Amino acid sequence: MRDFLPDAVRRRQYVIGVVTDVYERYGFEPLETPAVENLETLLGKYGEEGNQLIFKILKRGEHEASGQADLALRYDLTVPLARVVAQYRGQLPRFFRRYQIQPVWRADRPARGRFREFYQCDVDALGSRSMAVEAELCAAASDVLVRLGFSDFSIRLNHRQVLTGVLDAAGVSPDQHGEALVALDKLDKIGADGVRRELADRGVPTTASDGLLQFSAGIASSGAGTASASDASFDNADTLDRLSRFVGDHEAGRRGIEELRNIDALVASTSAHGRVRIDATLARGLSYYTGAIMEVAVPDLAGSLGGGGRYDNLVGMFLGEDVPACGFSLGLERIIVVMTERGMFPPGAESAPADVMVTVWNAESLGESLALARELREGGLRVEVYPEADRLGKQFRYASARGVPFVTVLGDDERAQGLVAIKDMKSGAQRAVARGDAARELKAP
Amino acid sequence: MRDFLPDAVRRRQYVIGVVTDVYERYGFEPLETPAVENLETLLGKYGEEGNQLIFKILKRGEHEASGQADLALRYDLTVPLARVVAQYRGQLPRFFRRYQIQPVWRADRPARGRFREFYQCDVDALGSRSMAVEAELCAAASDVLVRLGFSDFSIRLNHRQVLTGVLDAAGVSPDQHGEALVALDKLDKIGADGVRRELADRGVPTTASDGLLQFSAGIASSGAGTASASDASFDNADTLDRLSRFVGDHEAGRRGIEELRNIDALVASTSAHGRVRIDATLARGLSYYTGAIMEVAVPDLAGSLGGGGRYDNLVGMFLGEDVPACGFSLGLERIIVVMTERGMFPPGAESAPADVMVTVWNAESLGESLALARELREGGLRVEVYPEADRLGKQFRYASARGVPFVTVLGDDERAQGLVAIKDMKSGAQRAVARGDAARELKAP
Repeated sequence: MRDFLPDAVRRRQYVIGVVTDVYERYGFEPLETPAVENLETLLGKYGEEGNQLIFKILKRGEHEASGQADLALRYDLTVPLARVVAQYRGQLPRFFRRYQIQPVWRADRPARGRFREFYQCDVDALGSRSMAVEAELCAAASDVLVRLGFSDFSIRLNHRQVLTGVLDAAGVSPDQHGEALVALDKLDKIGADGVRRELADRGVPTTASDGLLQFSAGIASSGAGTASASDASFDNADTLDRLSRFVGDHEAGRRGIEELRNIDALVASTSAHGRVRIDATLARGLSYYTGAIMEVAVPDLAGSLGGGGRYDNLVGMFLGEDVPACGFSLGLERIIVVMTERGMFPPGAESAPADVMVTVWNAESLGESLALARELREGGLRVEVYPEADRLGKQFRYASARGVPFVTVLGDDERAQGLVAIKDMKSGAQRAVARGDAARELKAP
Repeated sequence: MRDFLPDAVRRRQYVIGVVTDVYERYGFEPLETPAVENLETLLGKYGEEGNQLIFKILKRGEHEASGQADLALRYDLTVPLARVVAQYRGQLPRFFRRYQIQPVWRADRPARGRFREFYQCDVDALGSRSMAVEAELCAAASDVLVRLGFSDFSIRLNHRQVLTGVLDAAGVSPDQHGEALVALDKLDKIGADGVRRELADRGVPTTASDGLLQFSAGIASSGAGTASASDASFDNADTLDRLSRFVGDHEAGRRGIEELRNIDALVASTSAHGRVRIDATLARGLSYYTGAIMEVAVPDLAGSLGGGGRYDNLVGMFLGEDVPACGFSLGLERIIVVMTERGMFPPGAESAPADVMVTVWNAESLGESLALARELREGGLRVEVYPEADRLGKQFRYASARGVPFVTVLGDDERAQGLVAIKDMKSGAQRAVARGDAARELKAP
């Protein structure tokens, strides 16, 4: 877990500001939930591996000695959302569209762009089965990335029911679907041979794994594979045709293909047009997805900048009644890692700590410096007061090292004449202005 | 611990926005630390009672069964700051001025305005012993409260060394100072008789407690007591004179009084002028304060909206070398409780979820609605798309119930003519405008 010193916080605030602005333009509203949930709310929602990564909090009071845990740190923002929707059903609108930008915690081994405490930027729409929801989520994620300066990303799109159809058609038995998806999800990391070995290890018959990998290879060669995220020459219609032929008359598979076709058509009306490529090899790890799944890829990061999908049954685990839901989560840390490595932050994202530093002439005039600082702040400036009566040269050097662009000097002469001297730390130029004009002069120097 | 639904988040964001803006005008820079600290970093910093209220996190892996804890949830923002200053000494400026607005967790019994998860808005200045620091902290806190609309607050000011002088002069033995301060701190809650009983219970001799309470009563009658926070008729010079007479030639006490006199003089040059009343009965609970202590009071809240003080030795517990430090912490939750009860939030603090809702004419024209939404968003508007092809009346009612001020209608006729109908949900008036003008029309209706 990391500390964020001021420059790092400013970079994070810049990204969060863009994400917030885009999400609000899509009519999403802010939600915040506590860092701590009841342990039982989280257990059983993330699969066995997920359960192991939950940070548990000791029950207070006499139970502490027994090591009993009743609370846990938030593991993602989706399960708390499902709890909130079940808990506040009557207070929320029929179509609840919320964004949430908060940290989550996983007892994972840290890696590049992966930390034990990290922020998720989630956006979810509940209450509708319309594919307009998927299209808008792709558009919102795309807008965020474009606004941040990304141009070489693509949004991979697939569908859990289509995957079911593909696995059934390949001859993978239903009870092996989950494990086969975990293996298939690693195709771009471990290659076809690696996936073949994993499938064999998990007891999937050779005929089934051959069929599956042959299909994946065909999909990849159609230009819709994982080959290169920056390669925009993909043909969703062709991929959908290949999927149709492979899945045949598998009912759930056909319905999924129809939904993908629908999303693809709607996306064409949004700003995500040309960004969404249907990719039949995308699987996504989490078990709660029921429909479309999405993931954002850039060429220079293994793993994704974010992803999401439809999960129509999760709220039902809390409410006892299903509420359709679909969401997208952007990983703040990974976005910042890539933006930092590529030098994508604009100069304004790391501002100087203050617009001006007020120096102190001598110990007796400290109050006079505080009064000047007050005037400049009332004029809208960010003002740091040097707190001690050090030699002026030392104060100047401090301002310069801090990157503060201007300092003021209130010497005995200036004070006698109602003036204040303004020194430009870049040029070294110094000039005296009427004290009442100082704020205005500093704002438009 | 609480969930914050959209309106509540907007109110919180409004307050946090004001706090951030004021602190940045004072040249404070943002810092963020992890929610989780090593348990040993926190233990022993908050006194025995504090230790009991720390949420402990189970060590991961094989230790989980033993109930061993190695991590803990952040208990305040001051101890993590001290750790950061020790850890990053070389990277931080000589005068490190930071603000930090993050949640902390305490395993406390919840009460009005007190929660197990709550946000602190901290501002601290490290590296200087100048009393300009205390004066600026009082001014920054005062500016925040004035900007939020508070007019009836006062900042109580006292000094730990002065308290030492007073207790010594009253005849309380040094080893009983800590307990006597805890009792004295409750004067405005349990009254003089209550404090007398507590002092007796803690073994303070009657002569000492009589002297102490007689002095406190004298201070209170001078108008600087805790009688009423809104009563601005206090006389700091008179209080300082009484303190001087009571403390006599107690060396630390005299030094403390000199510092209070110095702060009082400097405050007169700041926007906190007339807000800071020296109050010899203010004690503050935390044990790490070494100099001036401050607390903000409003008449209609028992307890304070915030407080702080100088703690010149805390960083030394991590660094092995003392770094002077002084800080102030505002309690976000309590501020919001009082502002809500008094109806102090401006109308803009709770905005509509969107500027306009785009309706859907029929299932076939969903893409057309998405395209219009895109155009309006590019024009800077916050746009919600109704996701389903329900009857138009139902869509209107939904927008109305959500408080969205305008909806658009793209009927067959409008589309044929390149128009879009805009309906004002308040007046019910509807008019058609050229589609290219829609964003501009909606921004300046």
